[in-house]
Amino acid sequence: MNGADRLCDVLLANDVDVCFANPGTSEMHFVAALDRKPRMRCVLGLFEGVVTGAADGYGRMADKPAATLLHLGPGLANGLANLHNARRARTPIINVVGDHATYHLANDAPLTSDIASLAKPMSHWYAETKRPEDIAPTTAQAYVAAMTMPGVAVMTLPGDAAWGDLAPAPVERTPLPALPHVDADAIRQTVEALRSGKRVAMLMTGKALRTEGLMIAGRIAARTGMRLLTPQSINRIEHGVGRVPVDKVPYPVDEGVRHLGDIDVLVLLGTQIPVAFFAYPGKPGRLIRDNCQVLTLAKPGDDLVQALAWIADEVGAKEPPRLVQPGGLTDALPSGKLTADSVGYAVAKLLPENAIVCDEAVSSGRKFFGISEHSAPHDYLQITGGSIGIGIPMATGAAVACPDRKVIGLQADGSGMYTVQGLWTQARENLDVVTVVFANRSYAILHGEMRNVGVNTFGRNAARMLNLDEPYLDWVTMAKGMGVEGGRAETMDEFEKLFRGALSRKGPFLIEAVI
Amino acid sequence: MNGADRLCDVLLANDVDVCFANPGTSEMHFVAALDRKPRMRCVLGLFEGVVTGAADGYGRMADKPAATLLHLGPGLANGLANLHNARRARTPIINVVGDHATYHLANDAPLTSDIASLAKPMSHWYAETKRPEDIAPTTAQAYVAAMTMPGVAVMTLPGDAAWGDLAPAPVERTPLPALPHVDADAIRQTVEALRSGKRVAMLMTGKALRTEGLMIAGRIAARTGMRLLTPQSINRIEHGVGRVPVDKVPYPVDEGVRHLGDIDVLVLLGTQIPVAFFAYPGKPGRLIRDNCQVLTLAKPGDDLVQALAWIADEVGAKEPPRLVQPGGLTDALPSGKLTADSVGYAVAKLLPENAIVCDEAVSSGRKFFGISEHSAPHDYLQITGGSIGIGIPMATGAAVACPDRKVIGLQADGSGMYTVQGLWTQARENLDVVTVVFANRSYAILHGEMRNVGVNTFGRNAARMLNLDEPYLDWVTMAKGMGVEGGRAETMDEFEKLFRGALSRKGPFLIEAVI
Repeated sequence: MNGADRLCDVLLANDVDVCFANPGTSEMHFVAALDRKPRMRCVLGLFEGVVTGAADGYGRMADKPAATLLHLGPGLANGLANLHNARRARTPIINVVGDHATYHLANDAPLTSDIASLAKPMSHWYAETKRPEDIAPTTAQAYVAAMTMPGVAVMTLPGDAAWGDLAPAPVERTPLPALPHVDADAIRQTVEALRSGKRVAMLMTGKALRTEGLMIAGRIAARTGMRLLTPQSINRIEHGVGRVPVDKVPYPVDEGVRHLGDIDVLVLLGTQIPVAFFAYPGKPGRLIRDNCQVLTLAKPGDDLVQALAWIADEVGAKEPPRLVQPGGLTDALPSGKLTADSVGYAVAKLLPENAIVCDEAVSSGRKFFGISEHSAPHDYLQITGGSIGIGIPMATGAAVACPDRKVIGLQADGSGMYTVQGLWTQARENLDVVTVVFANRSYAILHGEMRNVGVNTFGRNAARMLNLDEPYLDWVTMAKGMGVEGGRAETMDEFEKLFRGALSRKGPFLIEAVI
Repeated sequence: MNGADRLCDVLLANDVDVCFANPGTSEMHFVAALDRKPRMRCVLGLFEGVVTGAADGYGRMADKPAATLLHLGPGLANGLANLHNARRARTPIINVVGDHATYHLANDAPLTSDIASLAKPMSHWYAETKRPEDIAPTTAQAYVAAMTMPGVAVMTLPGDAAWGDLAPAPVERTPLPALPHVDADAIRQTVEALRSGKRVAMLMTGKALRTEGLMIAGRIAARTGMRLLTPQSINRIEHGVGRVPVDKVPYPVDEGVRHLGDIDVLVLLGTQIPVAFFAYPGKPGRLIRDNCQVLTLAKPGDDLVQALAWIADEVGAKEPPRLVQPGGLTDALPSGKLTADSVGYAVAKLLPENAIVCDEAVSSGRKFFGISEHSAPHDYLQITGGSIGIGIPMATGAAVACPDRKVIGLQADGSGMYTVQGLWTQARENLDVVTVVFANRSYAILHGEMRNVGVNTFGRNAARMLNLDEPYLDWVTMAKGMGVEGGRAETMDEFEKLFRGALSRKGPFLIEAVI
């Protein structure tokens, strides 16, 4: 056996059995090794942004890493933007970046580059492999890093480490260390705050946003009046009817400041202080009051649910939490021309139980999270790092992780074009994804931002940079070219018919909602 | 005026009057400033790989930099793979990377990342701007770096530097230093080698591959018997009938070694020692003999043509060079089913005078360069860094630089999917580009590489990673969805008809050549 075989064995021993891939010549021995392991599911992306974005969607839903296979520095570079999102989401991913044989690096062949410098900004953990014997321990460490930090691990696989001979050896599951205990002082301070009569809010992420964590948080809220908040960008939440309602920090700065302005104590549960997505002249950077007290109850790698349970015990939170009741979406579907809001309302109302919503609707989707609190219970995943082009890949990966669940992609058109190649992977794998493209034919968010900087009338240059017209993108035709069926809707009737039809069948479908 | 206005003014004062852009919120003041400068042509790419690849194609043809406008670290990351190619091509580009306001960086907003770490591997020059007053000198330095290194410059533009007030001030053209003089010792050694009776070859790039340089090199060759070589990847050459013929270093290692094996002295003119694109077990890394003497006549930033002229004087090279004579492509066009070779032959034979060929045909295009030596005179540009996804963007940028010339893109299908969004920019700008897609429906190069590692029969995983089937990509339909007309050819008759038709009209057209 060779080093590449060993790499596959360590991955499979840890149930890392999906590899999103776009290989090149330096990875041929890895490809050959994967070919010898039919238990590994290899999913091809036609661009590395699809590969890493799919690994993000997969990791969020599977709660374990997928592997990726990336071709040297440039292949990694193409995947970085979505690794940036995954890093912000703290999604477990093991990226395997092929590299030249170690002895070939000094020759500065055309594809040589500084992989470490590229990887580090968008990962939590990085290691270079040198010899075949290093592969097993490095892969095991990458697995532990991905699961416990949790987050994005990157390891290199030089050609000579991949093809180098190794004696066969048994490979066992890598033991994971227990999550660090929550700090008793942080618990004490939080409990004190909750008993102080001050207005306390808890900003939660990760496992705290699954039903178990939310139920405990909901009990604490019912007992103490604590507000439950999520960041503006949510990696994953179990959401909808029957679940604990939470407030999401709004995107616009002024709204965010208003929303958080009355908080006396902000408790961070795996999160950081909410800040403006961008700086604006004369506007604050942090959304909380300057004199708001901040308590870090737990850091991302800590046991967030244990922290909640401990707090609940301390404050005697035995009351059942408030849950979202059915009947919140009783309005009839709007009719007439489509708007972003009417499409969002229709999706929320018609959302099938147990669906997975992947939201990169950007400006078109601002209201969706609030409305979909009243939808059938579902998982909601969102772009987390602001690096557009995650939507189609994330939906792709979520569908690979959960083949029995319907995935609904809410997709802005400008962002969707970044990784439009991902539609082909949905066709190739026959994934059960309905992509709703909000075709406003512009970078609509930037129209608003131009007004924010005082420009209300655009000249040619601004119009040419902010509008997606001349020509319009024909999403249905592009999807068809990649093997995904679709339809265009300009009215609510058309949209409802297409959306219901897409829900009633399996396999990928795209709806271009012209708004 | 503000910092962003000043940035535009310095660019325009240096005739940097094209900006390939994909802006975001942090760049709104820059967008507003560009909007006030109608002399600047802003060209939108729907993905940053299109933006940087177009800037590469533009810079190669215009011999001056375009600016790019990229959105923070992730936007830069998306453009890195094609900056890697531009770095290898030493194309002048000024990348302006928007960043958060300097005081906002500490808040670690979602899009914050380490831009320096990302930029440095794929650029020759990097600078961070802090204050509005820094913008003029930094932009001027970026211009000088792009022109003289020559190569890829990256500068950041923080929000507060862009929007900060500046007193109006006159902006003048930035003086460029003279190119460094060629080293007299290097001249002497090269002349000695040429007189020694040893077999000497010169490996040339950059300006040496334009007609002026080639004519001088051809005279030296005629006088001394020196061989003229280009690297395996050519940034730009003036090629075809009436021009000086050169040998291109072959891609396959064994062939490269054979091709260069009889060279006693290799003279590097702006180039580096030719090496294997990838390492293979038991094969050499350098393509020249171990005892081949290597002389560095000039480095990339030196005056390559001056070096040639000096050598020519020293050796008394007064004879006219050998030129490619007409009549080299007299065979009738092949008929029947398409093959990569028959398509290449047809393109070479029908190539219009003064065309620009942008070659990312990869394995399908290996023979094209040799054949097209006999084509009508044209410019030939190629992927230079092995980072696929440059083809469509490079053709886009070349067409922006040279609106009166026909651009022919030779495009592998696997590579083409990396930056397929570039077709929309061709439609938007109505660029005169004919894209010929070699649709072999696989990563054909990797099929060969798998055989190289001893795998002749593929299992499911390898087939799923190396074939672009199930479903096939429908290039004509994808192009149509982005506003580019096209047609599919399965026979030579169909191809010839489509290609002649595309040549007879202006504007973008795509031919899917099913091979």
